Amino acid sequence: MTIRIFTTGGTFDKLYFDAKSEFHFGDPMAGELLEEANVNFEYRIESLLQRDSLDIDEQDREVIRKAVANARESLILIIHGTDSMVDTARALLDIADKTIVLLGAMQPARMRYSDALFNLGFASAAAQLLPAGCYIAMNGEIFDPLKVAKNRSQSRFEPTEQ
Amino acid sequence: MTIRIFTTGGTFDKLYFDAKSEFHFGDPMAGELLEEANVNFEYRIESLLQRDSLDIDEQDREVIRKAVANARESLILIIHGTDSMVDTARALLDIADKTIVLLGAMQPARMRYSDALFNLGFASAAAQLLPAGCYIAMNGEIFDPLKVAKNRSQSRFEPTEQ
Amino acid sequence: MTIRIFTTGGTFDKLYFDAKSEFHFGDPMAGELLEEANVNFEYRIESLLQRDSLDIDEQDREVIRKAVANARESLILIIHGTDSMVDTARALLDIADKTIVLLGAMQPARMRYSDALFNLGFASAAAQLLPAGCYIAMNGEIFDPLKVAKNRSQSRFEPTEQ
Amino acid sequence: MTIRIFTTGGTFDKLYFDAKSEFHFGDPMAGELLEEANVNFEYRIESLLQRDSLDIDEQDREVIRKAVANARESLILIIHGTDSMVDTARALLDIADKTIVLLGAMQPARMRYSDALFNLGFASAAAQLLPAGCYIAMNGEIFDPLKVAKNRSQSRFEPTEQ
Repeated sequence: MTIRIFTTGGTFDKLYFDAKSEFHFGDPMAGELLEEANVNFEYRIESLLQRDSLDIDEQDREVIRKAVANARESLILIIHGTDSMVDTARALLDIADKTIVLLGAMQPARMRYSDALFNLGFASAAAQLLPAGCYIAMNGEIFDPLKVAKNRSQSRFEPTEQ
Repeated sequence: MTIRIFTTGGTFDKLYFDAKSEFHFGDPMAGELLEEANVNFEYRIESLLQRDSLDIDEQDREVIRKAVANARESLILIIHGTDSMVDTARALLDIADKTIVLLGAMQPARMRYSDALFNLGFASAAAQLLPAGCYIAMNGEIFDPLKVAKNRSQSRFEPTEQ
Repeated sequence: MTIRIFTTGGTFDKLYFDAKSEFHFGDPMAGELLEEANVNFEYRIESLLQRDSLDIDEQDREVIRKAVANARESLILIIHGTDSMVDTARALLDIADKTIVLLGAMQPARMRYSDALFNLGFASAAAQLLPAGCYIAMNGEIFDPLKVAKNRSQSRFEPTEQ
Repeated sequence: MTIRIFTTGGTFDKLYFDAKSEFHFGDPMAGELLEEANVNFEYRIESLLQRDSLDIDEQDREVIRKAVANARESLILIIHGTDSMVDTARALLDIADKTIVLLGAMQPARMRYSDALFNLGFASAAAQLLPAGCYIAMNGEIFDPLKVAKNRSQSRFEPTEQ
């Protein structure tokens, strides 16, 4: 079993640059974190984009969509900024025969305290256990992309009224 | 949904005491890690034992067995030392109607680098998604307790020949 | 012996807020770090400002200047953003009978990897050992504020030609 | 200016090995920590011993003594276990023309929370600023080796009655 991991930027991979006192994207952290976790499964990591989630547009989504659709692997993780994660997930709903799990982080993986490593573990199990389909795995919960929204003031994903 | 978490000691919760230059058990880390992960699900944590896994005997297993069997919750995580995790898991195989997931860590959660947070995330998804039964969730893989062994020299769990 | 610590913001105390994908200032970290370091000396921490170093103006410097001049303690640490640390240090050169050491960090203390804890240790020794005067203690070096500049592209303080 | 750093084991460099649920010595952390701290000064690190401080005997002290006496550099840091740090420091008191600073840690540098990085920063400033002689730099304080003892129950160094 191989899990294919696409990274797109977002808080998960953010790095602090003092020169401008801003956050920028560093190299994808997923590989380092999976080594730290000493996982048995095989994985291939590919950086598709390095964007703030709010800057991801339809063209970017098409890049992600094609990469997922063309992947040989049937288990897919997408590391994505949280602000537009739901939009990207919805754009992938019609891809068949693959289990696609989107995850991100509210705190960069490079912080001393971060939800990144937990979320990566959570999503790794979700990808292995869920049937084919597209899911958001955040805050220790698995969501249907059509029934979830990010609550910004609370920094968490919540089910929407339906 | 509430996940019940029983802690029993093991590497996951180890603490370093300089006075004797040894590791001892600190307070269970699970609550602190779940707060860091900012999870949506409810959880209740109970410390049953604080033992090195090699020191867990049949009497201890009976304590764990009773606690799991009597828990109101149907989703159970057990944080356990890795050396005898398989033995404890096998002692729980006949408990019906509950999804029981055992996990641990090869590096204490208090280390700068540790598999603990990943493993807790991984097991939290496994508990939500697996059917009733007893499982070991380590190294990013879900194992049947009858078909797994710890490879000590490699510090990882592996499927056994069957 | 008591060391008085004034905090003014800067990278040292930065916090990541996902909601806006920006850094903001969190509570001063100095107290937490000194507890982690388990120091014998007494200290009093006071937050004077929470500013990016580039936003510190003459009025702010007057606030810092008065606080230092009026402090009962003769050993003073000032945690300050790096971009205008030299300017603030020069504004304090005429304060007599106090050992004043300015320090900061290139990476926030809340990152997994940061120079903040080292720099705080380095400056704590400098404050105890240097004669009265005003100094910058960065990158493991003690500088005369009149003979130092921040090299932004290298993210380090360097002696200036003289 | 070059600081010569000798490592001898001790808590500072401890590593956790799950296989035996014990601590062992990992590679010296000093280089990694000094890179993290982004210091300007030159340094050379040499591992002399990898011992628990309690196991350091007179022969080991002679090894340390010779290494320090023969070092070309006049600024010396010795990273040492805390339990017998005072004994080793006293064995170095007659070395002339060098500033020798012993330091250690109560929590391994590999822990998420540790005094190691602070102590390394503190000792780095002490080595640059103190006159020739031998010193212990622990808990944010500089001690004369003849007037200090480790208080084990408090895990800190304290001045002795004199």
